[in-house]
Amino acid sequence: MKLHVITTGGTIDKVYFDATSEFEVGEPQVLEVFREARVGFEFVVESVLRKDSLEMTEADRQLIRERVLASSCERILITHGTDTMVQTALALSGVPEKTIVLTGSMQPARFKGTDAVFNIGTAVGAVQSLPPGVYLAMNGRVFDPAKSRKSLERNCFEEIT
Amino acid sequence: MKLHVITTGGTIDKVYFDATSEFEVGEPQVLEVFREARVGFEFVVESVLRKDSLEMTEADRQLIRERVLASSCERILITHGTDTMVQTALALSGVPEKTIVLTGSMQPARFKGTDAVFNIGTAVGAVQSLPPGVYLAMNGRVFDPAKSRKSLERNCFEEIT
Amino acid sequence: MKLHVITTGGTIDKVYFDATSEFEVGEPQVLEVFREARVGFEFVVESVLRKDSLEMTEADRQLIRERVLASSCERILITHGTDTMVQTALALSGVPEKTIVLTGSMQPARFKGTDAVFNIGTAVGAVQSLPPGVYLAMNGRVFDPAKSRKSLERNCFEEIT
Amino acid sequence: MKLHVITTGGTIDKVYFDATSEFEVGEPQVLEVFREARVGFEFVVESVLRKDSLEMTEADRQLIRERVLASSCERILITHGTDTMVQTALALSGVPEKTIVLTGSMQPARFKGTDAVFNIGTAVGAVQSLPPGVYLAMNGRVFDPAKSRKSLERNCFEEIT
Repeated sequence: MKLHVITTGGTIDKVYFDATSEFEVGEPQVLEVFREARVGFEFVVESVLRKDSLEMTEADRQLIRERVLASSCERILITHGTDTMVQTALALSGVPEKTIVLTGSMQPARFKGTDAVFNIGTAVGAVQSLPPGVYLAMNGRVFDPAKSRKSLERNCFEEIT
Repeated sequence: MKLHVITTGGTIDKVYFDATSEFEVGEPQVLEVFREARVGFEFVVESVLRKDSLEMTEADRQLIRERVLASSCERILITHGTDTMVQTALALSGVPEKTIVLTGSMQPARFKGTDAVFNIGTAVGAVQSLPPGVYLAMNGRVFDPAKSRKSLERNCFEEIT
Repeated sequence: MKLHVITTGGTIDKVYFDATSEFEVGEPQVLEVFREARVGFEFVVESVLRKDSLEMTEADRQLIRERVLASSCERILITHGTDTMVQTALALSGVPEKTIVLTGSMQPARFKGTDAVFNIGTAVGAVQSLPPGVYLAMNGRVFDPAKSRKSLERNCFEEIT
Repeated sequence: MKLHVITTGGTIDKVYFDATSEFEVGEPQVLEVFREARVGFEFVVESVLRKDSLEMTEADRQLIRERVLASSCERILITHGTDTMVQTALALSGVPEKTIVLTGSMQPARFKGTDAVFNIGTAVGAVQSLPPGVYLAMNGRVFDPAKSRKSLERNCFEEIT
């Protein structure tokens, strides 16, 4: 398996710059997660955006779709902010012959007790096991984006029933 | 999805007792990993053994197979020592109508920089995405146990070529 | 030794609330640090403020001074934002018969790789070893507040030479 | 301040080698702790022994004493196993004109939730604040070695009363 990882920003990549005492989207954390887990597959990481997903525009989503369509890999993992992850997943529907899994985290990857490492693991397990299509991997579950949402009250992803 | 988790010991569950200054197999760490990742699926955790996998006997493997056969869940995750994970996976072959994924870690789950959280994530992603059968999830890859091994030199799992 | 811990906010207590995707000053982290280190001395923790230290006013500093003067303990540790830690320390000068050590961190205590645990350790070591007076403990050093500053370029505390 | 750090092994430096599935004393962890805390003082680290402190001999203690006497620094921090830390401290009594602080940890520095970072912080705070003499820094307290012991029941250091 060769995996194409596209990073777009979001909570998962938030870091803290003390000089200005502000949190901002930093370097893609997925590289550090892969290194620590000593993953045994080939991958490329492409940083396409560094945005809070609430600030993501329709043009940003088209850019992500273009990068996906241009990829030579059949298996694509996208790290993304959680607030509009479903929208970006829906904007990728119809991409042929590729298994695409979006993931992110509720707590920055740099935090103790973050969900980022587990979520990236889940996405990696799913992306190599599923047929072509677009999926979300959050809270240990693999979702169909058309039937899922982020619940603000419960602060997790859930199926729309 | 309801997931049946069977724990058998191994490095993943190693803890350190200072009073005796010894490392021993402790409580199943998968519970703490699931709690921290705030997983959104139902699960039961059953601690069947607490052994280094090098000490595992044929009788132990039959016990694990019995617990798997007795399970009411279609999806089963087994945490296991890495040294004989392949053997236990092979001893589970032919179990009908269940997707079974074995995982473990090279560094204890309690260590900074452990691979346990990522590996359990990968196993969770794979177990809900794959058809019935027995699989290993290690180093971010999902293996057919009949075609994989732990490489002692490279200290990772690899395909037999 | 009985230690009076006064918390005022700052980077050390920053947490991340995903629902709003904002970092804010949260609960005092010193309690969690003491618990994890299994400290063997008596202490009380008093949360006096929850502010970025850049937003701290002269009235806030008077409040801290009042709480210090009202304390029945001879040894006082204050957690504080780094940007105006020196100013608050200077505002405490002349308090009689108390050893007062201020500390904080450049990275939130909740981050992997934070300096908070080490800095609180340094402050605890210093506060029980020094004669009455006001001190800063940062970057593994114990400073006289009248002769130290936070260097924004080097992002650490240093002596004024 | 220039600090001479002498490392002797003990739980604080325990690492886990999966190939053999054994825990052993590894590289001095104090360097990593200093790096992460971005300490602002000069230091040298000298690895004198790599032993469980239960295996330490009288000759080992003489070696440590020789290294201390040969040091050009006035402030010396020694990392050491906890079981015989008191004995080594007593073997250093009478060393003139040096402030010597011994510390270690109940859980390896590489573990999540270790006490190593805090303890090294406490020792660093104490070593630069105290007059010449030999001290232990454990559980957030600075002890006179002649009046302290490790309690096996309570798994912490305490005063002899």
